[in-house]
Amino acid sequence: MDPLDIIGNLHKVKPVYQPVVSAIRHKIIGYEVLGRFRQGEENWCSLKNFFHDGDVPEEFKVDVDQHLLKLAISEMLDSKRTGFLFINRTANELLFNNGEDLLETLLYYKEKGFSLNRVVLEVTEHDFEERFEELNHLLLYYKTYGIQIAIDHIGVKSSNIDRIRQLEPHILKIDTKMIRDHNREGFQDVMFSLSMLAQRIGAALLFENIEDDFQLHFAWKHGGRFYQGFYLAKPEFQMRSNDYLTLNTRDKINSYIQREKNLIEQRLSFVLFWEQKVKELLPKWDGAKKVDPFIELVTEKFDQESFRMFVCNGDGLQISSNFRKRDEIWEPEPHKKGSNWAFRPYFLENVMQMKTWNKGRLSDIYSDIETKDMIRTFSYPLTGQYFLFIDIPYTFIYENECLLI
Amino acid sequence: MDPLDIIGNLHKVKPVYQPVVSAIRHKIIGYEVLGRFRQGEENWCSLKNFFHDGDVPEEFKVDVDQHLLKLAISEMLDSKRTGFLFINRTANELLFNNGEDLLETLLYYKEKGFSLNRVVLEVTEHDFEERFEELNHLLLYYKTYGIQIAIDHIGVKSSNIDRIRQLEPHILKIDTKMIRDHNREGFQDVMFSLSMLAQRIGAALLFENIEDDFQLHFAWKHGGRFYQGFYLAKPEFQMRSNDYLTLNTRDKINSYIQREKNLIEQRLSFVLFWEQKVKELLPKWDGAKKVDPFIELVTEKFDQESFRMFVCNGDGLQISSNFRKRDEIWEPEPHKKGSNWAFRPYFLENVMQMKTWNKGRLSDIYSDIETKDMIRTFSYPLTGQYFLFIDIPYTFIYENECLLI
Repeated sequence: MDPLDIIGNLHKVKPVYQPVVSAIRHKIIGYEVLGRFRQGEENWCSLKNFFHDGDVPEEFKVDVDQHLLKLAISEMLDSKRTGFLFINRTANELLFNNGEDLLETLLYYKEKGFSLNRVVLEVTEHDFEERFEELNHLLLYYKTYGIQIAIDHIGVKSSNIDRIRQLEPHILKIDTKMIRDHNREGFQDVMFSLSMLAQRIGAALLFENIEDDFQLHFAWKHGGRFYQGFYLAKPEFQMRSNDYLTLNTRDKINSYIQREKNLIEQRLSFVLFWEQKVKELLPKWDGAKKVDPFIELVTEKFDQESFRMFVCNGDGLQISSNFRKRDEIWEPEPHKKGSNWAFRPYFLENVMQMKTWNKGRLSDIYSDIETKDMIRTFSYPLTGQYFLFIDIPYTFIYENECLLI
Repeated sequence: MDPLDIIGNLHKVKPVYQPVVSAIRHKIIGYEVLGRFRQGEENWCSLKNFFHDGDVPEEFKVDVDQHLLKLAISEMLDSKRTGFLFINRTANELLFNNGEDLLETLLYYKEKGFSLNRVVLEVTEHDFEERFEELNHLLLYYKTYGIQIAIDHIGVKSSNIDRIRQLEPHILKIDTKMIRDHNREGFQDVMFSLSMLAQRIGAALLFENIEDDFQLHFAWKHGGRFYQGFYLAKPEFQMRSNDYLTLNTRDKINSYIQREKNLIEQRLSFVLFWEQKVKELLPKWDGAKKVDPFIELVTEKFDQESFRMFVCNGDGLQISSNFRKRDEIWEPEPHKKGSNWAFRPYFLENVMQMKTWNKGRLSDIYSDIETKDMIRTFSYPLTGQYFLFIDIPYTFIYENECLLI
C-alpha cells in the first residue's frame, strides 16, 4: 500500500471495533479502534503496516489517527453506545505537535457529550525508551482530563518494572500470544510478577489476542479483568452488542470458578490430612533438646510427600538439623542448625498466624534456592514456640494438579 | 589516569575485598573484588573510571580483570579462607575472546583447589541488551562449571522481568542507593515485585551500598539474604574475618525480628477485634435477601475503619449493594450488585479458607483500582455461603504502622 494512496483517500479509511469484555460483569465494556483501508471493491485491509512503517511521515499517521477517532466517537454518540473507546498511539504520533491534535479532537467531542474518561489511550512502554520523561509528562497532562492510560505489549519488551510503575497506568495490556510462543513455566513467573505489580499499583490487567478456551482460562486465572480476542469477538465495522458475542462469557467463567474451587478444596484436604498426621505424632514431642529424634518420626510419616524438613523457633532460628532425603534415605544435616530464616518474605507472618490459630499452613508455590525446583512448604505449630517446616518436592506437586496452581 | 599507565604498571594494581554478610548465619560468606591503582606513594585510587571508560580497549580491561582475579584467588588459597568470590564483568569484557580468558584462569585455579562454585559472576542485564542471546549462552556455559551468576544494578535500569527470568540468576543484586534517590513508595512497589519474582525463580536478593541502619532494616524486611556496604564493612586490602565486622549483625537482625513480631501481633489484634465486632452482629443476619439492611448495621460499627463494604457468595458474586462512604455518609450503590470478583488473585482461595476455618482474614496492602489509594481488605464468613468484605482506607492504615507494612 502506498501511504500517499491512503492519505489521499481518507474516505476509504474506516474504523473497525473489537469488543473488550469484562470479567466482572461478563459483558462488553468498550471497543478498541483499529483501521481498515478499502482496496478495490470490497477488499478491506489492515492499516498495521502503514502505522508500523518508519518511513511514513508522522503527520500522515496522525491524520489517519484523527480521521479514525472522529468516525469512532461519532459512531458511539450516534448509536448512543456506552463504554470505553481504546485507541493506539506510538510515542512519535503522540509527540507530533506536542500531542495537541488528539486533545483538541477529544475536547471538541466532549462538548458534544463524549466524556474524556471514556477514552483509553494505549501506548507501548518500550517505545518510550528514548523520550521517556517528555512522554510521561504528556501522559500526566492527558490524565488530568480523565483520559485513561493502558500500557500495551506488556510481558516481553515492555516489562521494565520501574518504568511501568512510573507511568501509573490504569491498565496493563498483555498479549496472550506469549503463552503460545514462550516456554510456559517461565511465562507464568513473568505473569505472576506482573499481576503482583498490577495489584500494587492499582492497574487492571487486559489480555488481548485470546483465541481459545485455554487462553481465556489462563487470562482469568492470572487476574485478567478484561479480555479481547477472536475467541470472544472479531473486529467489525459495527459496534456489536452483548447479544452478538458468540461466547457465553458468564458460563465460561463460571466453569473456571467451579474448577478452581474444586482444586482449592482438594488442596485444603491435603492441609487437613497433613495436619492430622503431625497431630498424631505430637504426644511424642519431647522438647527442643530432642528435636532431631522427633523429626525422624516425621520423616517416616512424610516419606512420600517430602524431601526436606526442619524445626524453627518463633524468631526464625532453626533449632534442628535439616533432614534431607537423598536416594530414598533421610539424612540429618546438623550444620544447618543455627540458621535464621526470618528474613524470608512472610516467614514471621506465617509463624505468628500458626501460633495464633494453631493451624497448619501451606505456602504458595516457589522456587527453592538450593535445587531451583518449584516447591511448597507445609508448616505446623508443634507448640506455641516451635514450628515444623515440611518441604514438598516438585515431583509430588506435579502429580497433584491442585498443588500446581 | 592514563589507561596505558595502568596497563603498563600492573604491579601497582591490587584488589580490595568488600565483605558480603549473610542474613541466615549473620557472618561473612564471601568478598567482592574491586580494583585499586597506586598513584604516588600511598595514594590508592579506584579503577571504576578505567572500567567504565568506553575508550579504553576491552583488551586492557580484561588484562586488569585477570590480574585482579589471580591475586584474589591466590590470596584466598594462601589464607585458606572459605566463601565466595564476587567478580564484576561487563558484556564486552565477557565477550572478548569468547569469555575464554576468565574460564581458563578459573580452571587453572580449580586444579589448585579453588572450586568454581565459589565464584559469583556479577553482570548487568541492561548491559546485555544488544547481544542478549550470545551472552545468555555464555552464562549458561559458565553455569555448567558451577559458576554462579548475579545480576547487578537491579531495580532501575535492570528491571526487565522477562530478561531477568531468562538469565536464571542465582542472585539479584539491588543497589540500596535507590532507596535514597527514589520516591520511597514507588520503590517499595518495585521491591515487592522483585522479591516476588526472586521467590518464583529461586534467586537470592543481595543488597549493596548499605550505609545506615534504616537501609539494613529495609534490606532485611524486603527479603535480603545478603548484605554489603560501608555500614557493615568497607573494602580493604585484607580479607577481613567476622571478628572485624564493626556491626553485630546478629543483634541488629534480632532487633528487626522483635520489632516485626510486635507489629504482626498488633495487626493480628486488629483482626481479632474486627472479627469480634462482626460476630456481635451475626444474630441480626437475616439471609441474603436482606443483605443491604445488614450491611447498614456493619457500617455503623466500622465507620472509623472502613470506607467501602459489600457481601459476596462463595462463587465471588456480589449479592449486595456496595456501601460507600462519601463525605462521612454511607451510601448504597445498588448497581454494583451482580459483579463477580472471583478473577482477582487469591479471591477464591481466601473465600475457601474463611469457609474452612471460619475465621476472618486481612489482605496484604494493595492499590485500589478505583481510588488508586493503598488499602487492605478485611473479610469475614457470615455463613458458609456468604462473605463480608470490609475495605480499610489508607487514612486508617497510615495511622497504624502495623497495617502499613
